[in-house]
Amino acid sequence: MPELRKDPIFGRWVIIATERAQRPSDYARGAPEADAQEACPFCEGREAETLPEIAAVRANGSAPNTPGWQVRVVPHKYAVLRIEGATDATLSGMHLKMGGVGAHEVIIESPRHDEHPAVMPPEQLASALWMYRERYRDLNRDQRFKYLLLFRNHGRFAAAHVAHPISQLIALPIVPKRASEELEGAQRFFAREGRCVFCDIIRQEQAEQTRLVCQNDDFIAFAPYAAWCPFELWILPKAHAASFGQLGDEQIPSLAKILREALGRYHACLGNPPYHYVVHTAPYTGRADHYYHWHIEAFPRFSLVAGFESGSGFYINTTPPEDAARYLREAVPPPAGTVHGRGA
Amino acid sequence: MPELRKDPIFGRWVIIATERAQRPSDYARGAPEADAQEACPFCEGREAETLPEIAAVRANGSAPNTPGWQVRVVPHKYAVLRIEGATDATLSGMHLKMGGVGAHEVIIESPRHDEHPAVMPPEQLASALWMYRERYRDLNRDQRFKYLLLFRNHGRFAAAHVAHPISQLIALPIVPKRASEELEGAQRFFAREGRCVFCDIIRQEQAEQTRLVCQNDDFIAFAPYAAWCPFELWILPKAHAASFGQLGDEQIPSLAKILREALGRYHACLGNPPYHYVVHTAPYTGRADHYYHWHIEAFPRFSLVAGFESGSGFYINTTPPEDAARYLREAVPPPAGTVHGRGA
Repeated sequence: MPELRKDPIFGRWVIIATERAQRPSDYARGAPEADAQEACPFCEGREAETLPEIAAVRANGSAPNTPGWQVRVVPHKYAVLRIEGATDATLSGMHLKMGGVGAHEVIIESPRHDEHPAVMPPEQLASALWMYRERYRDLNRDQRFKYLLLFRNHGRFAAAHVAHPISQLIALPIVPKRASEELEGAQRFFAREGRCVFCDIIRQEQAEQTRLVCQNDDFIAFAPYAAWCPFELWILPKAHAASFGQLGDEQIPSLAKILREALGRYHACLGNPPYHYVVHTAPYTGRADHYYHWHIEAFPRFSLVAGFESGSGFYINTTPPEDAARYLREAVPPPAGTVHGRGA
Repeated sequence: MPELRKDPIFGRWVIIATERAQRPSDYARGAPEADAQEACPFCEGREAETLPEIAAVRANGSAPNTPGWQVRVVPHKYAVLRIEGATDATLSGMHLKMGGVGAHEVIIESPRHDEHPAVMPPEQLASALWMYRERYRDLNRDQRFKYLLLFRNHGRFAAAHVAHPISQLIALPIVPKRASEELEGAQRFFAREGRCVFCDIIRQEQAEQTRLVCQNDDFIAFAPYAAWCPFELWILPKAHAASFGQLGDEQIPSLAKILREALGRYHACLGNPPYHYVVHTAPYTGRADHYYHWHIEAFPRFSLVAGFESGSGFYINTTPPEDAARYLREAVPPPAGTVHGRGA
C-alpha cells in the first residue's frame, strides 16, 4: 500500500510509493562530464581568469590572485544579484518588487579540477567548510542582507556548469519562502511543545534506526521520514544551534567527515550521481535561537519530473526513505584521493 | 538591474534576471520523441491494452472498450495511489501518515497518436475539457477525496512516458501544500480587501497589457508578474468562480480556444517545447467560493535547475515575464490539424 506522509516541520504531504519502490540500479547514472580542464578558470594557475578574489586559505602566505591556495572565494562572473544598491521595496498595484541587491560568490573548494567532496581528503573539505562559515559571518555584517543561501550543484545534470569542485553562496535582502515556512513550522512546534522540532526528530531517528545513514560524535545523517525525492538526506548537528554561523572550529572536522562520508555513499551507491546540497540556517535577522536548528539537505538529481512538482507542489517519491537509508548504509564510500574521471 | 519580485498570492520572492534575459532561441528545442505508435496502448483499436474504461465520449453510441470514441478515461496502469481503503491518519512520534488512497486516471484526449492540444481541432480539445469537468464532478461524490490534481505532461522531457496526447488526474485525501498556501494567501487578501485577489490581478493585467498574451470573451492568458520560470503562463476565467467544477458548458468552447492558442504560441515560439499545465482549483471541501478563483498554470520545461529550486524554494527566472509575453504575442500559432511529427 502506498503511503501519504506529512513533513512535521514544513507541513508538506508526499506520496511514498512503497510498492513500485525503485532501487539504486533503476536510476540512470550521471553522464560523464565533457568539461575541458584546459579551459577551467578555477584551476590553480589561472587566478587571473576569475574576478579578483574576496578571500582565500593560503597556508604558505602567498599573495592574493596567485597560486598557492587551498580554498578561494571569488565573485560569481554572472551574478544573479548586484552588490551595490538599496533594498527599498516598491508596490505598483498588486505588484511588489525590490532592487536585485545581493552577493553572489563562488567558493572554489580545491585547487584540483577533479577533487570532489566525495573523494577529497577530509582536511581539504574541512578548509572549504571553514570558508563557508567565514563567508557566512562576514556577509552578516552587511545590514542589507537577511538570509544566506549556501549550496553546491554537483554534476552537469544538476546545473553545475563547470566540473571543478565549487559551491555558491547568494546573500539575499529577503528571506526565501521555503526558509520562512520552515522557521514558522519550527516556531509553531516550539510554542506548542516547548522543544526544538529538529532535536525531537534526531531523537526519534536515533531510536528507530531505520532511516539512519551514518553519525559521529557531533553530527547525524539520515533519510527524512517524508523525503520529497529518492535518497534525500539530512545532516544535522547533534547539539542544538539555530545558525550556520554558530558552527564551532572544533565541529568542522566532524562535519567534513560526515559530509564526505554521506557524499561518498551517494557516489558508491548511485554511481557518482548529480546532486545538490543546501545549507538551511536561521536568517541573519530574527530570534530563532530556541526553535530553529541549522542543517544540510542533500538530494541526488535523477529524474525529470521536478518541473511538474515545482508547479503543483506535490511530490511522489519512488524510493521509501527506509530503503534509501539501507542502500546507503550498505554502500562502501571510496577512499580519499580516489580519482574518479575528470570532473565526474 | 535584476529585480526581486513577490508573488501577491503565494508570497514567494523570485529573482527576475533582467540583464542577462534569455530569448526563445536560447532554450534548447524539445528533442524529437522516439515513441513507437505501433506499441501505443492509447491509440484507437487498442482498447483492450488499457484497464477497462471509466468513461468515454462516444458520439456514435459505440460500446465501452471498443473503437469509435473521441475521448476516453481509464485507470492509470501504475497508479501512485489505490482506490480502495480508508483515509485514517496515524501518528507515530513525530511522524504522521495516511494510507495512500486516491484515484489516478488517464484522460486520453484524442484517438489519434499525434494530435496534441496545440494542433488539434478546437472541438476535439473541447471534448477533452468537457471530460476533465465530468471527472472532476464525479470524483467529488467520493467523500474520501479532498482535492483533485488535474495536469498534463507534454514531451518526454516533461515526464510524459508516451507520446499519445493524454492528461492525468489524481484525486487526493489531503489538500497539497501548494494548494493550501494559495488558498490561505487568497483568503488573507479577501479578509483585508474584501475582493478576490485573482479578480484584481486580471484587472491589473488588462490595464497594463505588458504581460498579456491573449484573451477572449470568457478567458484571459498572461505571464504572471512574479513568474517562477521562463514563459510561465496563467489562464483564468474572467468571471469569478472558485472551483473547476463550476466550469459551465457554454464556457468550454472558449476555454478550448484559449488553451489551444496559448499552447500553439508555445509551439510556435519555442519549437514544440516540453511543457506542463496544472489546473488550480478550490478543494472539494471548504468554503473558498468568495476568495479563490480557479485557473490553469502552464510552464515549459527547459532547464535542469528545478531540482535545486525544489530544495531551496528559491527561483531565478532568466526571461522577464514582460519579454516572454511579447515573444508569445508575436508568435503565430499553427493552424488546426497540422501534423508535427509523430508524437512531437
